[in-house]
Amino acid sequence: MSTAASPFDDIRQLIVSMPGPDEAAVEAVRARDGQLTKPAGSLGRLEWLAEWLAAWQGKAPPTVARPLVCVFAASHGVTAKGVSAFPAEVNRQMLETFAAGGGAINQICAANGLGFKVFDLALDLPTGDITEGPAMSEKDAVATMAFGMEAVAGGTDLLGIGEMGIGNTTIAAAIYAALFGGTPAHWVGRGTGVDDAGLARKVAVVEAALAQHAGHLDDPLEVLARLGGRDIAAMAGAILAARAQRVPVVLDGYVATAAAAILFAIHPSTIDHCVAGHLSAEGAHRDVLERLGKIPLLALGMRLGEGSGAALAMSLVKSAAAIHADMATFDQAGVSKREG
Amino acid sequence: MSTAASPFDDIRQLIVSMPGPDEAAVEAVRARDGQLTKPAGSLGRLEWLAEWLAAWQGKAPPTVARPLVCVFAASHGVTAKGVSAFPAEVNRQMLETFAAGGGAINQICAANGLGFKVFDLALDLPTGDITEGPAMSEKDAVATMAFGMEAVAGGTDLLGIGEMGIGNTTIAAAIYAALFGGTPAHWVGRGTGVDDAGLARKVAVVEAALAQHAGHLDDPLEVLARLGGRDIAAMAGAILAARAQRVPVVLDGYVATAAAAILFAIHPSTIDHCVAGHLSAEGAHRDVLERLGKIPLLALGMRLGEGSGAALAMSLVKSAAAIHADMATFDQAGVSKREG
Repeated sequence: MSTAASPFDDIRQLIVSMPGPDEAAVEAVRARDGQLTKPAGSLGRLEWLAEWLAAWQGKAPPTVARPLVCVFAASHGVTAKGVSAFPAEVNRQMLETFAAGGGAINQICAANGLGFKVFDLALDLPTGDITEGPAMSEKDAVATMAFGMEAVAGGTDLLGIGEMGIGNTTIAAAIYAALFGGTPAHWVGRGTGVDDAGLARKVAVVEAALAQHAGHLDDPLEVLARLGGRDIAAMAGAILAARAQRVPVVLDGYVATAAAAILFAIHPSTIDHCVAGHLSAEGAHRDVLERLGKIPLLALGMRLGEGSGAALAMSLVKSAAAIHADMATFDQAGVSKREG
Repeated sequence: MSTAASPFDDIRQLIVSMPGPDEAAVEAVRARDGQLTKPAGSLGRLEWLAEWLAAWQGKAPPTVARPLVCVFAASHGVTAKGVSAFPAEVNRQMLETFAAGGGAINQICAANGLGFKVFDLALDLPTGDITEGPAMSEKDAVATMAFGMEAVAGGTDLLGIGEMGIGNTTIAAAIYAALFGGTPAHWVGRGTGVDDAGLARKVAVVEAALAQHAGHLDDPLEVLARLGGRDIAAMAGAILAARAQRVPVVLDGYVATAAAAILFAIHPSTIDHCVAGHLSAEGAHRDVLERLGKIPLLALGMRLGEGSGAALAMSLVKSAAAIHADMATFDQAGVSKREG
């Protein structure tokens, strides 16, 4: 971090001024939970979810009345290196599919009463090829983060974060390698389904990117600008804005978690208001989640992106909030408490 | 199995005449899945769920339009032995709580658009204390199974199976010990939250029950009558009726799985139309599910019963059906397929 003015200064200022958990709200949730007509602890992680919601919404009981899934779509210059099983024009086609209501995420949101919004992050202007130079300028990274902050502008009490962008599992792998070390091969997976030759190209691309940017990857925000796509920058912005606006966040899979990992690397507490929606089948997601201290809510072998794992997990969070808010207490129901 | 007429004969006849999976429907689901705008396999177990629904509904695409959670409530004479942290009068109180909409399961069903029905299985007439004699006569067991079959009578395309009954984790543990062998201590857990002394009483009760019924536990249906509660008998009936009516079943936790285990012991294929909704925190549920070859959809540390884990899992199954039925195909969306 240099002392001269940097485009990242506003981001750093936002991070140090973020609100912490509302301990009083958590205590109120615990007190009410102890009165609900069920054995103590019998709802497992659903009870924890109610406390987590209260901590970051700053209210008890917490609500999930306006859940929103945001999908951040971006184009990656690195696709020129043959890192995906799908061509880059699929980006625009998928955005049109989302708009027409035909994507997997549309169905999950409709089935579970979740709002849905897509952010087009200059889709027709791919970022730079990270094997040859930075993906974005620092100014572009900050502007994209600011755009991502709009995710919570319309009002929501639970935000799901997802992405769409051919080539972005390669980008995520490069970010993890830069943040956590280890070999590129450890972090690279098959994404949408590359064959062995494609997998080898992905590993080579990550190796080349790390060599290209060597000596400039100590600052997580610089990692974001140099290696990250606009999708990841916007998701990082959305996560920060959600914290500031007291909106808990459900992360999708391997790529979405890269945005959280950038923030975690700045300071671990920066993502305390985020829960891992699911364990992806992609790459080393399990390793990433362990490093971030996040236990995924679901593990269904999914690797689609589009916020699909986050959205499914949000239905569980919604149930946790409904249970906590609306169950009868022992006194209300006239149910006998435990003996002894 | 004796050759003389037995009250169980109709049940055995039902089992041998049950429909198998509809392979044509599965093939149709696979064919459509390959056309949906997503990388092959990227939805993991959701894709499997669509196939499983089609196999047992016998149609493609499958539907989850009228999902129903049924909770079977029964009283267990073994509560006289101090096996629960809660008094037996809680049974009636919880039924009233369900009727008033105040239970955890009411909130989960409301939040996820699931129908909900409670079966009162002679709640004011506890079954016999299994340490002193059979829980039920064979006739009573069959009549209770027949009553459970009513679960699918009103029409449903996805049935969730759950229970409520103070003392029934002890009953389930006794059934598992009888079916699978092993020590009672292996199968007994803390249920609603017994202390160490209560846990020791539960183990002693299962030991005493196994000794009391020694020599009469070779036939799974006899295990059901001698050890099982009416809740477990009714759930077994519901599972069989669902199969006959082509309704896939989502099992709740430790106690509900005991009904499936009885049927599995008769013939493993009897529960092929059942999926495990979740991994319970109770007792040796993981071991049970491994023996039944079932991979749970959720693992949230829950141990409430009431069909709560099944109901949460049903929201995932509902999403799987919606995705399969309503996603756009590559041709419809004009999305480019994978290269190479």
